[in-house]
Amino acid sequence: MANITTRPVTKLGIVGAGSVGTALAYAALIRDAARQVAIYDIDSARAEAEVLDLSHGTQFTGANTVTGGGNIDALAGADVIVITAGARQKPGQTRLDLAAANVRILESLMPALMEQAPEAVYILVTNPCDVLTVAAQKITGLPSNRIFSSGTVLDTSRLRLLVAQSAHVLMSSVHATIIGEHGDSEFPVWSSATIGPVPIREWQISGRQVFTDELLAAITDDVVNAAYKVIAGKGATNYAIGLAGVRIVEAVFQAQNAVLPVSALLRGEHGISGVALSLPSIVGSGGVYKMLEMPLDDGEQQALQNSAETLRNTMQNLGIG
Amino acid sequence: MANITTRPVTKLGIVGAGSVGTALAYAALIRDAARQVAIYDIDSARAEAEVLDLSHGTQFTGANTVTGGGNIDALAGADVIVITAGARQKPGQTRLDLAAANVRILESLMPALMEQAPEAVYILVTNPCDVLTVAAQKITGLPSNRIFSSGTVLDTSRLRLLVAQSAHVLMSSVHATIIGEHGDSEFPVWSSATIGPVPIREWQISGRQVFTDELLAAITDDVVNAAYKVIAGKGATNYAIGLAGVRIVEAVFQAQNAVLPVSALLRGEHGISGVALSLPSIVGSGGVYKMLEMPLDDGEQQALQNSAETLRNTMQNLGIG
Amino acid sequence: MANITTRPVTKLGIVGAGSVGTALAYAALIRDAARQVAIYDIDSARAEAEVLDLSHGTQFTGANTVTGGGNIDALAGADVIVITAGARQKPGQTRLDLAAANVRILESLMPALMEQAPEAVYILVTNPCDVLTVAAQKITGLPSNRIFSSGTVLDTSRLRLLVAQSAHVLMSSVHATIIGEHGDSEFPVWSSATIGPVPIREWQISGRQVFTDELLAAITDDVVNAAYKVIAGKGATNYAIGLAGVRIVEAVFQAQNAVLPVSALLRGEHGISGVALSLPSIVGSGGVYKMLEMPLDDGEQQALQNSAETLRNTMQNLGIG
Amino acid sequence: MANITTRPVTKLGIVGAGSVGTALAYAALIRDAARQVAIYDIDSARAEAEVLDLSHGTQFTGANTVTGGGNIDALAGADVIVITAGARQKPGQTRLDLAAANVRILESLMPALMEQAPEAVYILVTNPCDVLTVAAQKITGLPSNRIFSSGTVLDTSRLRLLVAQSAHVLMSSVHATIIGEHGDSEFPVWSSATIGPVPIREWQISGRQVFTDELLAAITDDVVNAAYKVIAGKGATNYAIGLAGVRIVEAVFQAQNAVLPVSALLRGEHGISGVALSLPSIVGSGGVYKMLEMPLDDGEQQALQNSAETLRNTMQNLGIG
Ligand SMILES: NC(=O)c1ccc[n+]([C@@H]2O[C@H](COP(=O)([O-])OP(=O)(O)OC[C@H]3O[C@@H](n4cnc5c(N)ncnc54)[C@H](O)[C@@H]3O)[C@@H](O)[C@H]2O)c1
Ligand SMILES: NC(=O)c1ccc[n+]([C@@H]2O[C@H](COP(=O)([O-])OP(=O)(O)OC[C@H]3O[C@@H](n4cnc5c(N)ncnc54)[C@H](O)[C@@H]3O)[C@@H](O)[C@H]2O)c1
Ligand SMILES: NC(=O)c1ccc[n+]([C@@H]2O[C@H](COP(=O)([O-])OP(=O)(O)OC[C@H]3O[C@@H](n4cnc5c(N)ncnc54)[C@H](O)[C@@H]3O)[C@@H](O)[C@H]2O)c1
Ligand SMILES: NC(=O)c1ccc[n+]([C@@H]2O[C@H](COP(=O)([O-])OP(=O)(O)OC[C@H]3O[C@@H](n4cnc5c(N)ncnc54)[C@H](O)[C@@H]3O)[C@@H](O)[C@H]2O)c1
Repeated sequence: MANITTRPVTKLGIVGAGSVGTALAYAALIRDAARQVAIYDIDSARAEAEVLDLSHGTQFTGANTVTGGGNIDALAGADVIVITAGARQKPGQTRLDLAAANVRILESLMPALMEQAPEAVYILVTNPCDVLTVAAQKITGLPSNRIFSSGTVLDTSRLRLLVAQSAHVLMSSVHATIIGEHGDSEFPVWSSATIGPVPIREWQISGRQVFTDELLAAITDDVVNAAYKVIAGKGATNYAIGLAGVRIVEAVFQAQNAVLPVSALLRGEHGISGVALSLPSIVGSGGVYKMLEMPLDDGEQQALQNSAETLRNTMQNLGIG
Repeated sequence: MANITTRPVTKLGIVGAGSVGTALAYAALIRDAARQVAIYDIDSARAEAEVLDLSHGTQFTGANTVTGGGNIDALAGADVIVITAGARQKPGQTRLDLAAANVRILESLMPALMEQAPEAVYILVTNPCDVLTVAAQKITGLPSNRIFSSGTVLDTSRLRLLVAQSAHVLMSSVHATIIGEHGDSEFPVWSSATIGPVPIREWQISGRQVFTDELLAAITDDVVNAAYKVIAGKGATNYAIGLAGVRIVEAVFQAQNAVLPVSALLRGEHGISGVALSLPSIVGSGGVYKMLEMPLDDGEQQALQNSAETLRNTMQNLGIG
Repeated sequence: MANITTRPVTKLGIVGAGSVGTALAYAALIRDAARQVAIYDIDSARAEAEVLDLSHGTQFTGANTVTGGGNIDALAGADVIVITAGARQKPGQTRLDLAAANVRILESLMPALMEQAPEAVYILVTNPCDVLTVAAQKITGLPSNRIFSSGTVLDTSRLRLLVAQSAHVLMSSVHATIIGEHGDSEFPVWSSATIGPVPIREWQISGRQVFTDELLAAITDDVVNAAYKVIAGKGATNYAIGLAGVRIVEAVFQAQNAVLPVSALLRGEHGISGVALSLPSIVGSGGVYKMLEMPLDDGEQQALQNSAETLRNTMQNLGIG
Repeated sequence: MANITTRPVTKLGIVGAGSVGTALAYAALIRDAARQVAIYDIDSARAEAEVLDLSHGTQFTGANTVTGGGNIDALAGADVIVITAGARQKPGQTRLDLAAANVRILESLMPALMEQAPEAVYILVTNPCDVLTVAAQKITGLPSNRIFSSGTVLDTSRLRLLVAQSAHVLMSSVHATIIGEHGDSEFPVWSSATIGPVPIREWQISGRQVFTDELLAAITDDVVNAAYKVIAGKGATNYAIGLAGVRIVEAVFQAQNAVLPVSALLRGEHGISGVALSLPSIVGSGGVYKMLEMPLDDGEQQALQNSAETLRNTMQNLGIG
């Protein structure tokens, strides 16, 4: 009979075997998001040890495999590549402070990746992810739908958790989104937020309004500062972003056309161009098919322009664009 | 060491080993919705054969078991009981035509079930499910949160499929609901329907509005007549309702507080009392915690009152209420 | 941005929208075994109604879709095709009685399928599945690894259920297999059967041997007659075979190289050639890579030869080979 | 209607928010192994940050929740408690070197845990897990089935990975086990190891024996030294043990009676008493129901006695027993 070989149907590449890259790999294996997970890191000892540890758990995760190490050709032929390589955010440091170093990493990394996986969809997680998305798009010349970042998918998950806890409902029954920069200028779109089909400001428990202006402001604050809080306590954030990353990866591998708030280069949406920031977007097998324009009230319109402005300034300081 | 015994942590009881009851059992086993699935049917030969067939598949479904037959004590101690017993809808027959016979079945069935499972949450699938919910609540005297029906969960799933197909997005990115009677007077709430965060009437592909009044009307029509079409072709509907039922069962077992359009006795919501019809409702471990009042435009308000009126008439004809 | 399109990554084709084909489709959708499930049946009204019903449940099953009807081009480009078309086993009828009619169906069906899906792996479920495997291989000229049948995967599942129940352990901790014809001459290989790592005859509860010769004989009997019992009670078997079929499909789509007792053309294994019967076999992306020769005691060797002889006789009566 | 509350059906407690405890929590949430996961660590800042990070990912993991911090009453009412608290193994250090410090931790920890969760099943992961199992059993006076350790479940997973890679088959088709100490004196039971139903030494690829004595010895060596290799590269092992731990937890919550090589106090099995080491055991809702005696050849019998002796020496040095 035929030779015994295995044809991996789907291959997920991860750049960076740090706390984020390995959590993402672990979640991808457990959820069986791809047949093969491959990890690459310039620190080959770390990468090999992480791959070994992850592989020891595969008895419990299905028919998938994990490979990789310090050689970039581990990523050859990947269908989707998630980039987590870079410096990690230190306590006190803003996300934008990390930018310059990480742009420089991309300048050598992206061409090397394109050689290994010319057809891949690229997802950036490294911060500042919005700015790096523009940089990486320019370096590669890829169409903007094929190179984007996890944006506010994670921040939105934090938002829904807090709303769900106050409303006493399941998280997937909360419809609310964070848009803008993945950073301090991001904001929730409260004007159209609903719980089930009920506008958030009309949600009542025992006849009393739950989501007062004070509570909405407190939740906004909590979400924007969540990463700082986690980093203060454990030095990094990794588990939630691991799952958020896998969620996006699944939208691509499963050709879902899911609406997710990822960040890609804007081309006139809400009158903004030339920066990448998060809007609810259709994500499917080719990457980002469309960034949606949702209804915004005047304050939200203004906040979105501010967020774009913040990003434009950073890009200018970094000499991008 | 200790004796070898197994303590089933969660037990799902199903009344009726017909096409719906067994599809629901199959889906529950595959999704591992409960540790133990128990089926009861007055036709004991059928029930035993179905249990045997289902049990032969359990190698592939996890650590769950399936039991049952023609003896109602198979359901003893069940945490949730789904009722699918009854006559099936014949081609041409309206759902309400089935009512009288099925009310009579409940009169003997419900007291016997209450003996076996006094603490269970009861979910009615047998048609006409709205009317039978009121009848079963009166027979048992159970608080109305613990006895309700699958309502328009299935119809809403049909709605989202059609909208998702026209919008080219994932079904879970469609936020739209069918409310009212599970039957001819049901209707979609278009006024607040969205795709992702975009109002449905503003959804565009290549710059053109997709959901014109004509398309919305056609979709409404398709949903309301979907069951008739399936019944015409295969004599019954069973697979979709099996999954819809399991979805509700999971909300209870997992204490989800999910918002689902189930049907329970109204007590003043939208000014309606004394009938059961579907509204988006919070479903968790105790059953239906709250039926939500969502914004409706004038036409929808009117349609909801009509639907309630239709149900009130049926109940009067049947001597319920 | 790019056009909104969806690229189905994996496509499962099913021939026959009867009780087996639709149960298999339902299980495949719930387990998310393939991105797209397509069903074809010469009875187009039935096929369309089943597809409609199944599609109405897809809100609850992930990002997959179901299509099909009475036109065979619904199966175009399928990666795996499962054949369930045929007459169903009637009460009292042996599996071999169905053979002639079903061979004739394959004579027209297989060439038409090969046009639609020339690269597919083909899995036969229609009975008598061993004999039809040989017929289909000859009709198509496909290499024998790419056309095989579900064989005794289902029978083995029945065996493990009974052993697990008597041993009070999880089914996946039972290692025992039915080999030979999927029919009356099949048999369990008790000589090497174990529970965990304990030989089955040494398994004790409270110091007493559980699996006496009497119990082993009773279990064998039960397994061989299981299908007859289910058919007597409900007219057909469908749910367990639906899951067994999906299990095999997953081995192919996931390139698992799982060891499963499927039935393919033998070429000298245990000295047998020219018939298809079930042996534990390696199943992966190309189909059956290898049929394994396991240790058998003298009685088992003899039983296997008898089973092969039975099949050879049937094939001769049918003019195959 | 009723108040909105949530009743957690199953609660998993984890002691230690270190690299192992949080990986285990992450895997438990993703696999939905329990409705509620609660983490406790004396380092409350770390515990709170980890809980926050994990909770931010729960939008993607089902209807479960994660709570905890520096207060042990976070674990109140847990059904299963996994203990990962302790010092981590440093490069070069043997597992037994860690013993004394960790015994001391258990002396104060166990009584406090018993107050919070008197009915729980306790699973030790902290090393040296075999020795700590005996210590914890003595401290608590719990019946030995309710307090055991993850033992060689992880080591067995490593073994199966290596065998599966050489045999080119799915890991779950490999039947082989590591028994004895979770440490340097552990060993694989090759005498009854099989791939599918084929004895490992008879496995052939292209007509040649794959598992020669040299390869078996090399695999044994690799497994016994796997942890050292991972620790040398990344400073700890955490992902694989996280999944192995969850696998055991699922056996308890799902009342599986799965056969797993966990470590509990022996009472005469293979003539050994008074030490805890790993044998294939039945694990279900009450913990370890039975430790199985599997066939061993003379060398394996001897190796098992040696392993017991090693453990007895350690216990003596530590003043346990
Ligand atoms: N977008 C988000 O929502 C989000 C959330 C969390 C973290 N992050 C970001 O993710 C990034 C990674 O965080 P972490 O905690 O994993 O950091 P980490 O320091 O643990 O890991 C980063 C890894 O990248 C590797 N690396 C550096 N340069 C490389 C190169 N040229 N090629 C290959 N590998 C290289 C390093 O060796 C290291 O192992 C950070 O930028 C962080 O800010 C983003
Ligand atoms: N609510 C929905 O969305 C929805 C969708 C589909 C079907 N249905 C309804 O579900 C019901 C069942 O449909 P089906 O296709 O399974 O019908 P079926 O005829 O296949 O099965 C009904 C079963 O109920 C059993 N039964 C009758 N009286 C009983 C009693 N007193 N105790 C126990 N068992 C009894 C019968 O023996 C039979 O096996 C019908 O009323 C149908 O209209 C509802
Ligand atoms: N191998 C096993 O373990 C196993 C188990 C159960 C059933 N089966 C077999 O599966 C087969 C199907 O059983 P069922 O209960 O689904 O029967 P069924 O009668 O419900 O369905 C068979 C379907 O095949 C269709 N069909 C017939 N000829 C066709 C053709 N040329 N092209 C396309 N479709 C065609 C029919 O229209 C019908 O819808 C039977 O042969 C049965 O014995 C095998
Ligand atoms: N059994 C196995 O197969 C296996 C595999 C890997 C690791 N381990 C063991 O698991 C243990 C934990 O490893 P790790 O990498 O998570 O270490 P870690 O240092 O990252 O975490 C240990 C945590 O325990 C906490 N802790 C210490 N004393 C405590 C107490 N009294 N109460 C509550 N919390 C307390 C510490 O604050 C720390 O956060 C080690 O003993 C390691 O050897 C076992």
